[in-house]
Amino acid sequence: MKRLLTFSFVLVVLFASAQENDETTIRKLYNTALNDQQGYKWLKVLTDIGPRMSGSKEADEAIATFQNIADSLGFETYLQKVKVPRWVRGEKEVAYYTSDGKTFQTNATALGGSVATPAEGLTAPIVEITSFDQLDSLNGELNGKIAFYNIPMDPTYISTFFAYGSAVKQRWAGAVEASKKGAIGVVIRSLSSSVNPYPHTGSMTYNGADKKIPAIAISTLDAEKLSKAYARDKNLEFFMKTSCERKDSVYSHNLIVDWKGSEKPDEIILTSGHIDSWDLGTGAHDDGAGSMHAFEVAYLLMENKLRLKRTLRIVFFMNEEFGLDGADVYAKKSKDEAVNHVIAMESDAGGFTPRGISISAPDSIMAKIKDLRGLLEPYGIHQFSRGGGGADISKIYAEDLVMIGLRPDSHRYFEVHHSARDVLANVNARELEMGSATLAALVYLLDKYDLTAR
Amino acid sequence: MKRLLTFSFVLVVLFASAQENDETTIRKLYNTALNDQQGYKWLKVLTDIGPRMSGSKEADEAIATFQNIADSLGFETYLQKVKVPRWVRGEKEVAYYTSDGKTFQTNATALGGSVATPAEGLTAPIVEITSFDQLDSLNGELNGKIAFYNIPMDPTYISTFFAYGSAVKQRWAGAVEASKKGAIGVVIRSLSSSVNPYPHTGSMTYNGADKKIPAIAISTLDAEKLSKAYARDKNLEFFMKTSCERKDSVYSHNLIVDWKGSEKPDEIILTSGHIDSWDLGTGAHDDGAGSMHAFEVAYLLMENKLRLKRTLRIVFFMNEEFGLDGADVYAKKSKDEAVNHVIAMESDAGGFTPRGISISAPDSIMAKIKDLRGLLEPYGIHQFSRGGGGADISKIYAEDLVMIGLRPDSHRYFEVHHSARDVLANVNARELEMGSATLAALVYLLDKYDLTAR
Repeated sequence: MKRLLTFSFVLVVLFASAQENDETTIRKLYNTALNDQQGYKWLKVLTDIGPRMSGSKEADEAIATFQNIADSLGFETYLQKVKVPRWVRGEKEVAYYTSDGKTFQTNATALGGSVATPAEGLTAPIVEITSFDQLDSLNGELNGKIAFYNIPMDPTYISTFFAYGSAVKQRWAGAVEASKKGAIGVVIRSLSSSVNPYPHTGSMTYNGADKKIPAIAISTLDAEKLSKAYARDKNLEFFMKTSCERKDSVYSHNLIVDWKGSEKPDEIILTSGHIDSWDLGTGAHDDGAGSMHAFEVAYLLMENKLRLKRTLRIVFFMNEEFGLDGADVYAKKSKDEAVNHVIAMESDAGGFTPRGISISAPDSIMAKIKDLRGLLEPYGIHQFSRGGGGADISKIYAEDLVMIGLRPDSHRYFEVHHSARDVLANVNARELEMGSATLAALVYLLDKYDLTAR
Repeated sequence: MKRLLTFSFVLVVLFASAQENDETTIRKLYNTALNDQQGYKWLKVLTDIGPRMSGSKEADEAIATFQNIADSLGFETYLQKVKVPRWVRGEKEVAYYTSDGKTFQTNATALGGSVATPAEGLTAPIVEITSFDQLDSLNGELNGKIAFYNIPMDPTYISTFFAYGSAVKQRWAGAVEASKKGAIGVVIRSLSSSVNPYPHTGSMTYNGADKKIPAIAISTLDAEKLSKAYARDKNLEFFMKTSCERKDSVYSHNLIVDWKGSEKPDEIILTSGHIDSWDLGTGAHDDGAGSMHAFEVAYLLMENKLRLKRTLRIVFFMNEEFGLDGADVYAKKSKDEAVNHVIAMESDAGGFTPRGISISAPDSIMAKIKDLRGLLEPYGIHQFSRGGGGADISKIYAEDLVMIGLRPDSHRYFEVHHSARDVLANVNARELEMGSATLAALVYLLDKYDLTAR
């Protein structure tokens, strides 16, 4: 009995000591992030390049810039050729409506992938659509008219991502569905979580449409005004003029940065974000923040001399916004080359205060990851929920691949997302750095305790 | 055995049903907050009045405005006379330094309570002070000079309130300590958590000083520049000119709003914030947000027909910033009238996403409050820690009074606090509303389950 007690005592001491070491190590990672703010400095470099639409020279410049930075830090870097669509906005959109002889300007943006209006613009009466059920019930009323989708994001969701998910169909499939009912153009209410004057762009499809009709988003403020005007005057006319254009596809790249592991270099722990962005802001949150989170993991580990047993790989994916081409290429090449990913992380939900992670992993590993909560809760990381890791890494999904998505506070995300407000001034350095340190701490712990399922 | 099982089953069902009811009720409180955004609308009314320095007409106007609103909602309202200090800033401060024949302007603000410089201003060499230990070691070097305190907030604290606490002495007691060493003026580095061009004001004392020397804060950006200039040129001269002035004290008021309880009207559940603010912004976060949190509790309960058993009392305290006079008067009157507070809450840490609460209560009650975490965690409320409720309610502290302070995310707080950035544009409506709903849910649950110790 005494021996058993002694043995237990030793185990407890060992465990307490390991716990203490982990606490100290994690503290150092957060300290380095909050002191150096390297990710925030890099985000300034990235956003200074400008918006990074896939196929643009700015997107390519961003790839080259961060390859240089990674090279100068001593990491191995590779470029992976990716064919990407090229869509250009053309001249600033013009959109207004006239009612009772008066003209009301709206703040508008073409949706990504939309065709242009005729050169002289498009004028037609509108039909306001507040649900897809209502659209289904229409029978000829949309013929020759403009469909005005006005479906707000539901404010009662605590995670605004659910509110976005429930409202995004009007943007993605609004043109397809309206054209089936005879509409000649589409105006959507911007997917923004508040009423404000900024239009939000984003991708749309024509898949399943007989004809391609032009589509724009107007600001939520203008959508509210237009809705009221329409309630008073069902015959009001809307004018829209866009000159956006789909060009030939071009070649761009994913950037891959490797830091070889000390014991198991063939096992890959991947952190990632996408480096392309929409063009209205500079993609500071979407997904400059996530790209910097992913990259700063390497910086924070290196600064603290914490080389992993496994290879740390950072991927800057190209063209998440407009077809996930970079993710497709990366997944295909990885399969061809039998790359052994064991853990994959993605940050693509903004640079706000991190609140937790979503996890996809076998049950036994999931339970062990949840056991880490005590180490991270002092840093405000408390949500450990089952869920997908992110759009880019979903392309390498496997049941036995541990996949993790960073979950920042989402209250402000859809006020900046895809709009002119997605700029560095709306990223808080401390909040951003907390995200980088959180991913670094997770990578460190998962590698140290072999929380892999392959 | 069968009977016992049945009985247990009934208990489980009853408990599950109570739990479900609570979940439904709490969901409704958050829904009302996020849909109506009444607190945010009121915060616009409040901040539109302007800065609300104690003793100013704007502070009085704010009290009158919210008394009207509370009256119109059918609550009982009272004013409580409070004698408050009156300090006025006078003309915009001027501060610059000259080095190598060049002049460098700084963004400066007089500290609250400071005396003015001579009318023509004050010019002197500086001594940079980076710690109070260093100050203690000075022996004559500060004679006839300006003390330049440059003690940054430590960025590695996760709660910026700790960083503030560790650096605030330079503002509060900097003049007293420097004057003992012969200094003729004080310049402090603003208490801001980032390097930016905005000066932050705040209160200071002359208690213990033989003479009153004028004190200003310069922006953190200017403090960094001044420090570098001083490193190159120890003889640089600093100029400061202020015309601030302490006037005679005047009378103002606390506003008290009561909603009588249905069963125990003599037991008071208090929610509170302070309605006075500094003058550089409009006190949107400090403490417009807290005042609106406190008041919106009544709105959210009323809208959902959730009258409490106990009396809900909202107190808008006057002059938290400059001496806690309103809190002193309230505490004294409460004692005189033997008011039976059973629960007291305060929100005075900004209108950012709420993360939890600090609790002061007897152990048994503390444990029961922590049991509520499961009901609030879906709303991101996860920190239930032991701690004070807040400065104003500390004046009615008692061991058996349950005291709760709202703890919002603090990363951005000290970028706006006491500066020109503390305006409505820097308050996010969703984040603010989450705080109101959290306090309303807590008030509802504590009253329902009689989580009082008196």
